Amino acid sequence: MKDDGLVKEIPKKSENFSDWYTAVVLKAGLADYAPIRGCMVIRPHGYGIWENIQQRLDARFKATGHVNACFPTMVPESFFRKEARHVEGFAPEAWWVTHRGADKLEERLALRPTSEAVINAMFARWVKSWRDLPVLMNQWCNIFRAEKATRLFLRTSEFLWQEGHTLHRTEAEAEEETLKILDLYLDFLKNDLALPVLAGFKPESEKFAGADRTYTMEAMMPDGQALQAGTSHNLGQGFARAFEIKYLDENNTEQHPWGTSWGVSTRLIGALVMTHGDDRGLFLPPKVAPIQAAIVPILFGRNDTAVLDRCREARAALDGIRVRLDDATNQTAGWKFNQYEMLGVPVRVEIGPKDVEKQGAVLVPRDGSGKRFIKFAELRAEVESLLDEVQSKMYDSALARLRAMMSEAGDFDEFRRKLAERPGFVKVAWCGTQDCENRIIGETKTTPRVMVPAEQDKGNAPCIACGRETGTRIHYARTY
Amino acid sequence: MKDDGLVKEIPKKSENFSDWYTAVVLKAGLADYAPIRGCMVIRPHGYGIWENIQQRLDARFKATGHVNACFPTMVPESFFRKEARHVEGFAPEAWWVTHRGADKLEERLALRPTSEAVINAMFARWVKSWRDLPVLMNQWCNIFRAEKATRLFLRTSEFLWQEGHTLHRTEAEAEEETLKILDLYLDFLKNDLALPVLAGFKPESEKFAGADRTYTMEAMMPDGQALQAGTSHNLGQGFARAFEIKYLDENNTEQHPWGTSWGVSTRLIGALVMTHGDDRGLFLPPKVAPIQAAIVPILFGRNDTAVLDRCREARAALDGIRVRLDDATNQTAGWKFNQYEMLGVPVRVEIGPKDVEKQGAVLVPRDGSGKRFIKFAELRAEVESLLDEVQSKMYDSALARLRAMMSEAGDFDEFRRKLAERPGFVKVAWCGTQDCENRIIGETKTTPRVMVPAEQDKGNAPCIACGRETGTRIHYARTY
Repeated sequence: MKDDGLVKEIPKKSENFSDWYTAVVLKAGLADYAPIRGCMVIRPHGYGIWENIQQRLDARFKATGHVNACFPTMVPESFFRKEARHVEGFAPEAWWVTHRGADKLEERLALRPTSEAVINAMFARWVKSWRDLPVLMNQWCNIFRAEKATRLFLRTSEFLWQEGHTLHRTEAEAEEETLKILDLYLDFLKNDLALPVLAGFKPESEKFAGADRTYTMEAMMPDGQALQAGTSHNLGQGFARAFEIKYLDENNTEQHPWGTSWGVSTRLIGALVMTHGDDRGLFLPPKVAPIQAAIVPILFGRNDTAVLDRCREARAALDGIRVRLDDATNQTAGWKFNQYEMLGVPVRVEIGPKDVEKQGAVLVPRDGSGKRFIKFAELRAEVESLLDEVQSKMYDSALARLRAMMSEAGDFDEFRRKLAERPGFVKVAWCGTQDCENRIIGETKTTPRVMVPAEQDKGNAPCIACGRETGTRIHYARTY
Repeated sequence: MKDDGLVKEIPKKSENFSDWYTAVVLKAGLADYAPIRGCMVIRPHGYGIWENIQQRLDARFKATGHVNACFPTMVPESFFRKEARHVEGFAPEAWWVTHRGADKLEERLALRPTSEAVINAMFARWVKSWRDLPVLMNQWCNIFRAEKATRLFLRTSEFLWQEGHTLHRTEAEAEEETLKILDLYLDFLKNDLALPVLAGFKPESEKFAGADRTYTMEAMMPDGQALQAGTSHNLGQGFARAFEIKYLDENNTEQHPWGTSWGVSTRLIGALVMTHGDDRGLFLPPKVAPIQAAIVPILFGRNDTAVLDRCREARAALDGIRVRLDDATNQTAGWKFNQYEMLGVPVRVEIGPKDVEKQGAVLVPRDGSGKRFIKFAELRAEVESLLDEVQSKMYDSALARLRAMMSEAGDFDEFRRKLAERPGFVKVAWCGTQDCENRIIGETKTTPRVMVPAEQDKGNAPCIACGRETGTRIHYARTY
């Protein structure tokens, strides 16, 4: 019954991962190339995923006391220059506005590559007393970074994200917030996106431009490249000093507050595609799938009315679940099966004349684990439980694949061998100097992704690059 | 018990409307001036209103089959130039990006003042067959127009909006969509924002740059100025021809589709402030108020625990309603009363030791219609019904004020007299020529806002400017 027309047009994931990825993103209607260099259009199916990501993350932000606001997109150049590390990191990739109408601007404006500068400038106006703290603010917005090599969702000149910006009275409170958000993100990635990651500090060279400490979440893609899924930064007092944010504490003494910032972006959609997709197309976790269940009538030209009526009953029974009933008559059921697999719909509901007769329906999970014949009266309970089952199995599979792509190496030769045998994260002892980092990058094209928490790896070992004893362990990998 | 500190800082609405407006927007924490010319920051209380507007409009868009997407912000100059009327209308107020990093761009890019150009360019890629129609797309995004004189929410260089863009097979279908959206907006303005408007065609001179027909909704502010609350445009085939959008119809013949576009913006927040606010601050319609009910404990330093416990019970009983319990001890109840009136919270719940004793609570609606003593057991039902009552009374009051600001004039002298006596909409017969429009603008500073539907005004009358007989009636007013 299957019509493989759609699927034949995409390369195999195992044979040409890069082309497979682009083909799935385009064919499933997640995104398209825009006629502006490096920019994409997020199409409705892709934007539907983002809406669900937004809704589920936003509820978590609000439950932890954060509020949303909206700051300007254009940032005066002088604002960037106030925090030295920040401008160094972001100026080379900024887009610059130089004219309004026919008039040349006195000072050029950058399209925000991130909003620390403009937000902290406003904080300086609003924060006066210890009673104004903490400030727990977030914004959902578009971000601009000049990128030359585009990959849809992973690297584009404009993308969507959320950026949290907070201020606190003490360094300890800022660190607590940084970690609270890291945990919130980890919970979301695990339970909603079924995306396992390694979490921990970034080494010095990979920190956010302006942060004291950056925590990262690093996912591993099937081609052996790490993908940074989100970051949470402890900004210390750097921005507060640069933008002269001061408050009077309870003893009437002027203090600088301590800041954090944190974000995840539409890049997560790319991670979902890569992690869960297969040769038949997308596979979306139920929690964020724009269509959670597709109802496909099996029509033979007789008893079609009874079948379609039953399908409409099914749609009504599944109210509250994101359902699409596809009653188009110009396509075969087989074509539709392929179509909804391509779109990553986690559960398909098939109803034909025999199912109507037997008071049943057929459920087909997208994971290939086989059809289930169920009683129509139990449709809703069965679909709900299958969605839960699919969601949790997706995480388990992804976690097993992540684990299979992690290894350890005791010296440089073993490190190279591990990278060649099984690309992924390779854990090594590393002294942390720029010289050793440069050598490793130069010889293997891998970069230091995420440090292993000290409590997990006690004791010294020789740095794989220079042989000096070090207590630091870190995961190296190639990256997007 | 009242502490008027907060309120004293704002001018009276009736004495200095313009300063009153700015003071309320700033004091209530809706918005602030950004350090970029003409730009604003939307602060959490203002953004909370926008989130509710988004949620309630978006549900209506989706219920009528529209889907969301995300298109690029930067639009190549050549794209604008494809539709002649369009570029003429928007080029003078565009912000221009000329550099990416250190490189000068070959073609400069405008920050979108509206997205017809880039969206129709993508439509040309996606639409091939009659089966691809209709296209019913919307995006929520930021918009950029170089404005010199800023008024928070009403006129800023960057603002937020939604813009719908659709394509249809016939002119009739496009007109049907244009009107369906106008109706959807009118329903939203009436039932959610309590905002009465006059709806109808724009005259030629006020049409959207590139539209065949523009429908507008015009609200009347208390200072006698009209405010355009939203527009719905029938674009005809202009953009489809300019961007070469073609599809094969059922007879395999190439056709251009017919387009529409429509939008409302954060300007609606300004309309809410002006329409419903008073000398005590904001007054927000319950449907979109970020805080629908504020619970204020009345504390005397004895039995406070019982009062606070009861307030927490009240918060739990009101679950699902947007409630804030203010248990801060460093401010008096009187200060809080003023504060929540300033913030426009539609209902206040007061609970003191006597209320605890009597198993009651006090409800105070923001409209000044007086306290209500209720049984605590009926708290939820009473608050819900009071919110409904407040919502519907807000519309009734606003409608009565709008009607009081509408008049008619038979000739130019009467027109001038009406404008002087009672600024607002003045309905006149008008021949529609640019000469007569120029004369009216020149002598009275009013512009033609919205045409009266033909079925409402039959028969000819002399144009107030030139005296020629005309069947056209139109509302003239000053405007923002």
